[in-house]
Amino acid sequence: MNYYPHPAEGLDLKEVNAAIEEAFAEHGRGKVQMPAKLYTYFEHGDFRTMPGYIPSMGMAGVKIVNVHPGNRAYDLPTVMALTVIIDIDTGIPLAILNATKLTDLRTAAAGAVAAKYLSPQRSITLGCVGSGRQAQTQVRAIAEELEITEVLVWSRNSNNAEDFCEINRDLECRVSGIERVAGCDVVVTATPSRKPLVMGEWISDGTHINAIGADATGKEELDPAILNRATVIVDDPAQAVHSGEINVPISKALYNEKMIAGTLGEYVLGHKQRKNQDEITVFDSTGLSIQDLAIAKIAISGKDSIDLPFS
Amino acid sequence: MNYYPHPAEGLDLKEVNAAIEEAFAEHGRGKVQMPAKLYTYFEHGDFRTMPGYIPSMGMAGVKIVNVHPGNRAYDLPTVMALTVIIDIDTGIPLAILNATKLTDLRTAAAGAVAAKYLSPQRSITLGCVGSGRQAQTQVRAIAEELEITEVLVWSRNSNNAEDFCEINRDLECRVSGIERVAGCDVVVTATPSRKPLVMGEWISDGTHINAIGADATGKEELDPAILNRATVIVDDPAQAVHSGEINVPISKALYNEKMIAGTLGEYVLGHKQRKNQDEITVFDSTGLSIQDLAIAKIAISGKDSIDLPFS
Repeated sequence: MNYYPHPAEGLDLKEVNAAIEEAFAEHGRGKVQMPAKLYTYFEHGDFRTMPGYIPSMGMAGVKIVNVHPGNRAYDLPTVMALTVIIDIDTGIPLAILNATKLTDLRTAAAGAVAAKYLSPQRSITLGCVGSGRQAQTQVRAIAEELEITEVLVWSRNSNNAEDFCEINRDLECRVSGIERVAGCDVVVTATPSRKPLVMGEWISDGTHINAIGADATGKEELDPAILNRATVIVDDPAQAVHSGEINVPISKALYNEKMIAGTLGEYVLGHKQRKNQDEITVFDSTGLSIQDLAIAKIAISGKDSIDLPFS
Repeated sequence: MNYYPHPAEGLDLKEVNAAIEEAFAEHGRGKVQMPAKLYTYFEHGDFRTMPGYIPSMGMAGVKIVNVHPGNRAYDLPTVMALTVIIDIDTGIPLAILNATKLTDLRTAAAGAVAAKYLSPQRSITLGCVGSGRQAQTQVRAIAEELEITEVLVWSRNSNNAEDFCEINRDLECRVSGIERVAGCDVVVTATPSRKPLVMGEWISDGTHINAIGADATGKEELDPAILNRATVIVDDPAQAVHSGEINVPISKALYNEKMIAGTLGEYVLGHKQRKNQDEITVFDSTGLSIQDLAIAKIAISGKDSIDLPFS
């Protein structure tokens, strides 16, 4: 059994996107096992347990990931993760990965795959609602799939938005009002919001939205009017209903899960596709264990590890 | 983050029983979080993912455990396990334990707690159906709670039964026919059987049975007639219905889950108790994540570990 303390180092984003795309394709083919993630709740946060198995990749295991919004006080990230990889033939634990950065990368890669298949054009303006680690990683992952002519960013804290543009100075990046950000060709929402931030009247026809922030019951970032006007594509229906962007509107009878257009896997396979240039598409991302397994496969390849006795 | 390669070493069985009893008491009080375990299936086995949280013990985490019946061919145990402990306040992973032997011990301890509360007498004859690692561990755990005057053991393979008695030569241990084994005061079934081994007519009034082997859909060891005649106590209703001794009879409409008398936690708390000397009691054990957390707490205390970087 080997422990990998820094498996995200040196990963090529294009290669990550390809691995995540393949995981979604296998999901679309119905060739994976992935029970919906389990939540355990603490007073100041929660942790999620995410088992999965991708036979075609020979990868099986479990990611364990927490969300503790108050962790800045401890000088720790809000989200930290560990992935355990299990041998398929014998069940023996093979590898343990520090999966904190891998979680960022695989989530961003899902957004990049969604933008690749759902954006109506190859050259886009990109709007970021939120300027945190995930928004930043989405920009880099999407840049591997589409040409970004301009990035507009909005944050509750304008200093954070300015820092975000400083990091992205190689792209045309500007801090902007949220309405203008929502007017970009592709919009990423990546905040911990528990009420809608992006209003329906700000969204133009033909926009693609990656709705990333809502990943637990009670979280939402989009005006439900957007969901009703848009084609909603989920990563996994059970998880999206429980904890994705659609969870709050469903609980308030403002959205019906029967309106879900399909899964990202179906779009990757070409079983479904954007109908026209004017369609608004929303990718509702909750994060799948099979993404964690797919990135683990390329992350441990040739990487330094610590050998641990297991007997 | 610390890795514990041999956390079962030097554990006191009486102390293990007490920790497991306390976990069941907290379960009975409704003070734990424990979603039913998730199963992921392979061609030659499966693995189970078991998150849990015991606030009173300050313990939260996940056990990952496989069952691969063909592992003898690889010179590996059928069942191997890893437990990951999470910090409640921050969610950071604190400890990883090799939990293979701990799994044996905590399962046996549940049997010992059940026998302590459900056996009608303190001095017993003990029958073991099956002579494997779990049957062996049950004998030792029960011996901490009750006086065992004689052990009778039956195994499909009589050499294994003889080896079992050789290990237990400090007790009065004899290899016997399965009917006589089933006639003991307390009977432990701990086989991988997928059809009833113990028939109803062999069980006398006042017997207590620990039904341990059935821990997955399709497994059963007892004639369903026994369940209908007995008071059935489960560790956890959802898990028992899905994968415990009652799962096959329920699927064949030979048992109804409404007949479950209660949980072991309720018996530990004294909210429920054996009604009279003649009642037949069956403890249907599936194994709870809170048992894994409770034994992890005492197992890592003062034990050697390997410090692993996590940042």
